[in-house]
Amino acid sequence: MAPLTPRLVVPVDVKKQPWEQKIPLHNRWHPDIPPVADVTEGELFRVEMIDWTGGRVRDDNSADDIKFLDLTITHYLSGPLRIVDSEGIPASPGDVLAIEICNLGPLPGDEWGYTAIFERENGGGFLTDHFPSARKAIWYFEGIYAYSPQIPGVRFPGLTHPGIVGTAPSLELLNIWNEREERLAENKSKKLLNCIQEGTAEWHKIANEAARTIPGRENGGNCDIKNLSKGSKVYLPVFVEGANLSTGDMHFSQGDGEISFCGAIEMSGFLELKCEIIRGGMKEYLTPVGPTPLHVSPIFEIGPVEPRFSEWLVFEGISVDESGKQHFLDASVAYKRAALNAIEYLSRFGYSKEQVYLLLSCCPCEGRISGIVDSPNAVATLAIPTAIFDQCSYAD
Amino acid sequence: MAPLTPRLVVPVDVKKQPWEQKIPLHNRWHPDIPPVADVTEGELFRVEMIDWTGGRVRDDNSADDIKFLDLTITHYLSGPLRIVDSEGIPASPGDVLAIEICNLGPLPGDEWGYTAIFERENGGGFLTDHFPSARKAIWYFEGIYAYSPQIPGVRFPGLTHPGIVGTAPSLELLNIWNEREERLAENKSKKLLNCIQEGTAEWHKIANEAARTIPGRENGGNCDIKNLSKGSKVYLPVFVEGANLSTGDMHFSQGDGEISFCGAIEMSGFLELKCEIIRGGMKEYLTPVGPTPLHVSPIFEIGPVEPRFSEWLVFEGISVDESGKQHFLDASVAYKRAALNAIEYLSRFGYSKEQVYLLLSCCPCEGRISGIVDSPNAVATLAIPTAIFDQCSYAD
Amino acid sequence: MAPLTPRLVVPVDVKKQPWEQKIPLHNRWHPDIPPVADVTEGELFRVEMIDWTGGRVRDDNSADDIKFLDLTITHYLSGPLRIVDSEGIPASPGDVLAIEICNLGPLPGDEWGYTAIFERENGGGFLTDHFPSARKAIWYFEGIYAYSPQIPGVRFPGLTHPGIVGTAPSLELLNIWNEREERLAENKSKKLLNCIQEGTAEWHKIANEAARTIPGRENGGNCDIKNLSKGSKVYLPVFVEGANLSTGDMHFSQGDGEISFCGAIEMSGFLELKCEIIRGGMKEYLTPVGPTPLHVSPIFEIGPVEPRFSEWLVFEGISVDESGKQHFLDASVAYKRAALNAIEYLSRFGYSKEQVYLLLSCCPCEGRISGIVDSPNAVATLAIPTAIFDQCSYAD
Amino acid sequence: MAPLTPRLVVPVDVKKQPWEQKIPLHNRWHPDIPPVADVTEGELFRVEMIDWTGGRVRDDNSADDIKFLDLTITHYLSGPLRIVDSEGIPASPGDVLAIEICNLGPLPGDEWGYTAIFERENGGGFLTDHFPSARKAIWYFEGIYAYSPQIPGVRFPGLTHPGIVGTAPSLELLNIWNEREERLAENKSKKLLNCIQEGTAEWHKIANEAARTIPGRENGGNCDIKNLSKGSKVYLPVFVEGANLSTGDMHFSQGDGEISFCGAIEMSGFLELKCEIIRGGMKEYLTPVGPTPLHVSPIFEIGPVEPRFSEWLVFEGISVDESGKQHFLDASVAYKRAALNAIEYLSRFGYSKEQVYLLLSCCPCEGRISGIVDSPNAVATLAIPTAIFDQCSYAD
Repeated sequence: MAPLTPRLVVPVDVKKQPWEQKIPLHNRWHPDIPPVADVTEGELFRVEMIDWTGGRVRDDNSADDIKFLDLTITHYLSGPLRIVDSEGIPASPGDVLAIEICNLGPLPGDEWGYTAIFERENGGGFLTDHFPSARKAIWYFEGIYAYSPQIPGVRFPGLTHPGIVGTAPSLELLNIWNEREERLAENKSKKLLNCIQEGTAEWHKIANEAARTIPGRENGGNCDIKNLSKGSKVYLPVFVEGANLSTGDMHFSQGDGEISFCGAIEMSGFLELKCEIIRGGMKEYLTPVGPTPLHVSPIFEIGPVEPRFSEWLVFEGISVDESGKQHFLDASVAYKRAALNAIEYLSRFGYSKEQVYLLLSCCPCEGRISGIVDSPNAVATLAIPTAIFDQCSYAD
Repeated sequence: MAPLTPRLVVPVDVKKQPWEQKIPLHNRWHPDIPPVADVTEGELFRVEMIDWTGGRVRDDNSADDIKFLDLTITHYLSGPLRIVDSEGIPASPGDVLAIEICNLGPLPGDEWGYTAIFERENGGGFLTDHFPSARKAIWYFEGIYAYSPQIPGVRFPGLTHPGIVGTAPSLELLNIWNEREERLAENKSKKLLNCIQEGTAEWHKIANEAARTIPGRENGGNCDIKNLSKGSKVYLPVFVEGANLSTGDMHFSQGDGEISFCGAIEMSGFLELKCEIIRGGMKEYLTPVGPTPLHVSPIFEIGPVEPRFSEWLVFEGISVDESGKQHFLDASVAYKRAALNAIEYLSRFGYSKEQVYLLLSCCPCEGRISGIVDSPNAVATLAIPTAIFDQCSYAD
Repeated sequence: MAPLTPRLVVPVDVKKQPWEQKIPLHNRWHPDIPPVADVTEGELFRVEMIDWTGGRVRDDNSADDIKFLDLTITHYLSGPLRIVDSEGIPASPGDVLAIEICNLGPLPGDEWGYTAIFERENGGGFLTDHFPSARKAIWYFEGIYAYSPQIPGVRFPGLTHPGIVGTAPSLELLNIWNEREERLAENKSKKLLNCIQEGTAEWHKIANEAARTIPGRENGGNCDIKNLSKGSKVYLPVFVEGANLSTGDMHFSQGDGEISFCGAIEMSGFLELKCEIIRGGMKEYLTPVGPTPLHVSPIFEIGPVEPRFSEWLVFEGISVDESGKQHFLDASVAYKRAALNAIEYLSRFGYSKEQVYLLLSCCPCEGRISGIVDSPNAVATLAIPTAIFDQCSYAD
Repeated sequence: MAPLTPRLVVPVDVKKQPWEQKIPLHNRWHPDIPPVADVTEGELFRVEMIDWTGGRVRDDNSADDIKFLDLTITHYLSGPLRIVDSEGIPASPGDVLAIEICNLGPLPGDEWGYTAIFERENGGGFLTDHFPSARKAIWYFEGIYAYSPQIPGVRFPGLTHPGIVGTAPSLELLNIWNEREERLAENKSKKLLNCIQEGTAEWHKIANEAARTIPGRENGGNCDIKNLSKGSKVYLPVFVEGANLSTGDMHFSQGDGEISFCGAIEMSGFLELKCEIIRGGMKEYLTPVGPTPLHVSPIFEIGPVEPRFSEWLVFEGISVDESGKQHFLDASVAYKRAALNAIEYLSRFGYSKEQVYLLLSCCPCEGRISGIVDSPNAVATLAIPTAIFDQCSYAD
C-alpha cells in the first residue's frame, strides 16, 4: 500500500492568464461543459484554483484594479470533474455526491489574498449605500495566520474554504434558473471561457444558455459558507452523468455574509478531496422544497476539527432601516443594521469605517438570525471573536 | 464579608394569576410604569418570572390551550427595576447599563416547559403556511437536560436565557415606535396589566400609549438571542431615569429564529444579575444608526463558558421560495428554505414534520446568514448539533 | 406526567453540626454502614452535602482554623443510598451503577467556599516543602463565577463537581484496602461518625474495620476529577447489595491535582442525580487489572456541555527535582516542577507565591502527563486558561 | 511587499540517508555543533525534517524493522539555526527565544507514518511488561485525517506537532545533564552524526561530551507535548550565542504520554516558524527552580485554533500497580493503571490489546493528573475523544 499523496487532477499556474491554463477553466454552469478529468470514488485528489478574478487584483496599495474590475466573466472554476465508481460507472442523475474536504490552503508560492469593497456602480455590496467607493486590503499569510498592512492590529487564523463547490445542472434545471432569474441584468453576460473550442456553434450555444456562477443554487455553487473547511463533508445532488463537479473562489477566511461582496480574503488555492457516490441518494435524502423534484438543496456536515473561539463581542440589528423605516420581519435589513452597528462601534477604536467594513467581510465573524417571528422586527446578530484583535502575549 | 446570596427583588408565585402576584408584573413598554424595586450597582440580585403566557399553557397532551390562547396581553414581565449607583444616584438617560447574567434557570418546583406551533389564525409562525394547526410539545427538565414525550429520541442540555431583557423607552422613543409600527394590528391591543392602579386615568393613558413587548427594539426587549446565557453580559442604553430594567420570557432553550413563534422551551424561571452603570456610555459606545440619537442597538458579550458542540449537520437554503419564485437577496426567505429542508430531511427518520418544526424551534440550532451579496440569492444555513439526538452511551 | 422536581433524599442543614443532621452522615467506607434512603433507577433525586470539614472553616481572613484543623474525621459524606430497580430489586454485586450528574451547585444561602494550604505538620500538600505554613483564601460566588478578596484580579466560572462519588466496598475489598494501606498512619484513625448508634458493638466493629475516605480507590471515592461536572456520567462497580452510593466533598472548582490538598474551592452543595443499574456490568465492562476480580476502576463520560477555554498558558516540568536530582520517569516530580515553574512565573505579576499556589489548586487548570517514556525524564505540563485573569471588557 | 512564501532554510530528501542530506543533520545536543543557517527575527522560514529513525521503518506489515531498530543514533534533527535580530546581532545567553508555529505538516509526497511498540529488550515502552513484543501500525494520511490498515474502524484528524523543539545547551548546562544522567546506559552511545567532519578531533570531542536527544530538558528538546501545534508559541531559554535552534521528531498525532515510546504517528515533515528574541528574557520570565540559574523550563501558549473534541470516554487509574501493591502518590503508576484499564475496556470491542496500546499512544487522548495529594493514591485519568471511532454519517 502506497502513501496517499493526492493525485493532482487540475494544476494551475498563477503566472498565466485564465485562458492559458493547461487544463481549461470554465466560468459558467452548463451540462455540456466537458469534464477535464475523471476521478474515482474513494481516491484522494487535488484540485488547484486561481483566484476568482483570474489574477486581476494586484498586491499593491491602490484600489483602482477593484474600481474597474470586469465582473462579467467571473468566477474562474476548476473542473468539471467526472466522478466514477470503482467499476468505472459514473455518478448518475438522482445520486448524491458526498465530498469530503481532507485538506485545503493557499497555493505554495502565492501566499497572499485581498478583500475589497466594490464601487457602487460596479457591483457594490451589502452596504454600498454607505460605502460607495472602491477599497482594497491586502492580506499576507504566515501559515495559518493572515494580517493586512491596511488594517493594522488584527491578525487571525483562517477558516479556509472554497466559496464554490457545485455540480453541473441538467438542462431542465438550467432552464428553471434562467427563467426565474431572467430579469437579472448580470445574467445577460454571455462571456464563456475557452472550456470548449471558442467561437464554435457549441461554444455559442453554451454561452447563450449557461448560468452565471454568482448565486448559490440547487447545485451548491457559490454558497460562500465559511464553515465548509477542513474535515467537513458536503452532499451535493447529481443532475448529470458524472456529476461534473467544479470548485473555485478559494477564501482564506470569510465572515458570515461576505458583506462587502469581494469580502472574503480572496486567493488562489488548492483542495484535497475525496468523493463518494450515494446511489439514488437524492430521492432518499434530498426532498425537494418547490414545484419540481429538482428544487433540492445541499446538506453538509461540520466535524470536530473546526477552530472554535470562546469569547465574542456581539452586535444586534433589528429590521428598521437607517432611515428609521420599519421592514416586516426582514432578516436582511436586520443584519444590515447589525453590521452598521458593529462598524460604528469598532470605528471608535481608531479604525476607519471602511477598514471595519472590510474586516467584518473577511474575519471569522458569525451572522445569526436570532429572531424571525417577533412581528414586526426580525433580529439579527453579528458576533466577532475577540481573539482576532491584537492580544497581549507572554512577551508584551 | 458575607456570602453572596443574591437578594430576591422580584418573587413570583406560579400558582397565582399574573395579576395576583405580590409584586405587580407589567406587559407593556412605557416610561411611566413605576419601578417595583431599587437595585444598587454591583449587587447580586435575583428576579423571578412567570412564563410568557402567565400560566395559560397546561402540562398535558392537548394543543387546545395553544389554539385559543389570547395573545393580546403577553408578555408578562418582572420589573421595572430602578438601578442606582453606590451613592444612590440613579442611572440617567445617556448612560449604558451593563448587565451580567451570573446565573439563571427554571424555578425550583416548576421544572418543565413547552414549545408550541400557533394556529395560523392566532399568531402563526415562520412556517405557518406549511403548518397552520396548533401543536404542543411538553418538555421535562432533568437538571440541565430537557426531554419531551412528544418528541422521543431527543434529549439536550439547555442554553437557557431570557427572551426579554430591556430598559424602558423614553416618551420620545415610544413615539418613534408607535409611529413606525402604526399599521400593525397587534399594536392596537390596549390591555395593560395592573402595574398601576387599574382604571385610573394614568392607567388609561399608559394603556393607550404603551408599546407591545413582541418585537425587539432599541431598548433590547424581546430579542430572543439564544446565546444570552450564563456568563454573558449585555449593554443596554438608558432612556429614562433609573433605567427601569425589565426581564421575562424565560427560555430553557431556543433555536436561532425561534421559528414556530412560541418556539423556545417556554418556562417560568429566575435570573441572578449584576449591573453596572457606564455614565455617558451611549454617546461613547452606542452610535445611532438612524435619524435620531435614539436609534441605537444593544451590544453583548459571550464569555468562555458557553457550551459548544463539535459536530453539526447543516442545511442550506436560498432565497427561492417554495413556489420556485426568486426573491432578491432575501435572508428571511433563504432561512425559511433552510428550515423546510431540515424538516424534510429529518422527517425521514421517523419524525412527523410538526415534530421537527417544534424541535428546530427549541433545540440549540444555529441560523446563519452565509451569503447576502451573491445576487440574486441570499444563502442561509441552519446547523443542528448532532449531539441532541440519542447517542450510544457506554451502557448501550 | 408531573414536572420533574428532583426528590430530596438527603437534606442537610449547614447551621448544624455534622452529627446533628436529621439524616445521619458518615465518614468511612464500610459495607455495614446502613443506607439512609432508597432510590429507584431512573428517578431524579437530590442529595445535599456539607463541606468536607463539616463547617470548621470560617469565612474570615485568618488561617488559624486551617492550621489546627482535625483531619482524623473527614470527609463527611451523604448517603449511603440503596439503589433499586423499578421492581424494587436492589443493585447486586457485579452490577455497574451508571450515575448521571444532571445538575449540581452550591447550597442556596451558602454561596461561598475556601481554598487552603495545610500546615506541613498537619497534612501538608503537594508543595509542602516550599509552602509549609497554613494559608486560606475565601471565595464568594456570583452565580457561576467565583472571586476571592485574598487573590484579587482573578474571577472565573466554576467547573463544579463532587470530589467524592463512591459505592460501598465489600468486606473482601475492604480487607484488600486495609492490607495494602496498613503502614499508612492516617488510616489508624478510628473516628466513625454516628451513622449507626455510637458506642454499640457494631459501631466499634465498623470503626475498626472501615477505610478512610482520603484516597480514590476501586469504588471511585475521593477521585477529585474536576471534569465530573454537569452532564457527565460515571460508571461505578457495585460491591454490595444496593450499591450503597455516597457522595460528598463538593468543589465549586478545582485544578487538576488539587495540589494544595485542601485545594479545590471547598463548599457545601447539592447534586441532582439519576441512576441506572447495568446488570452484570462489571464482568462485561470493567475488566480487573490486578490480582483479584475486585481490582477494577470506574469509567466516566464527559458530554458536550463542559465549558472549554480556548487560550492557555502552559508550564512544563521534567522529573528533575528542585535539588537538581534526576528521578526516573517520575510524573509526580515532573508535575511538581511544572507547578513550581508556574508559581515562579505568575509571582512576577504581583502575586505572592502562596497566592499562586492557592490559585493553581482551585482554578480550572489542566495537569497533563505529556511524556512518560523518554528516559530518564517524564514531562508534565500545567496549563492555565488565560480567561481566568481580569479581562478587558467593553466598559473598560 | 511580497507574498510571504516561507524561506526554506533546511530542505531534506527522504529518499536519501540521514548522513547524505545536503544540509547535514545532527543527533545530539552540544554547543559546538555548528549552525547550518541564519534566521532573522520576524522572518517566516521553513524547516524540513526526516522522521526520527531516519527512514529505517518501512511501509509494510512486518514489525521486524522495529524489533531490530538501532536506537543508539536517534533522533535526527534539523538545524541548528542561528537566530539573529534585524541588525544581525545574534540571540545571546539569557535571552528568551519565542517561536511561533505558523504551519506544519507531513512532507508532500511522503504522506504516511507509523506507530510502534518496541521490543522489551530494545527500548520497551510504558507498558513493556505487558506488551514485550514489537508491533507496528502504518498510518496513511488523507489531508488532516489518518487511518491505519492495522487498526480498522478508527480515523482521526491529527493534532500535528514537532516532538522536539530545542535550543543548544551551554557547556555548563551540558555538564549538569551529563552528571545527573551518568548512570543512564543509553547516554553512553557516542554515535555522533556527520554534522561536523567525521573522525576529526572536534568530532570525537563532541561525540564524547554531547547529550542524547531522548529526554526533554531545560532547553525544551524531546518534550513530546501534543498540543504544540499550529498557532502555538513556545518560549525557550537561550544558552549559547545564536540560540542554535533545532527541531525534529515530527508527529502527525500523539496521545499524552506517547506511551508505547515510538508511540506517536511518526513521520517526516515540515515546520513554518517565526522567531522573536526577547532580550534578557530568562531573568525576567524564566525563574530557575533548582540549584543553578540554568535550571529553567520552557513556557508555551496554546492559541484559539486548537481543535477541541466535545465528548470523551475517560478511564481512571490509581497508584496501585498490577500486582495490587500500593505506591505512594505515584502519578506514573496511576497513569499506567488508567492506560491498562482503557486497554482492557476497548479490547472488548474487537480490538487486540496491542492495537489499543498503539492507538492510545497516537490518538489525541489526554492524560491527566487528577489527584496528587490524596494519600496514598495518586489518581490519573486517560480521556479518549469518542469522535476518533467510526461515526455514523449522513450516508450510512
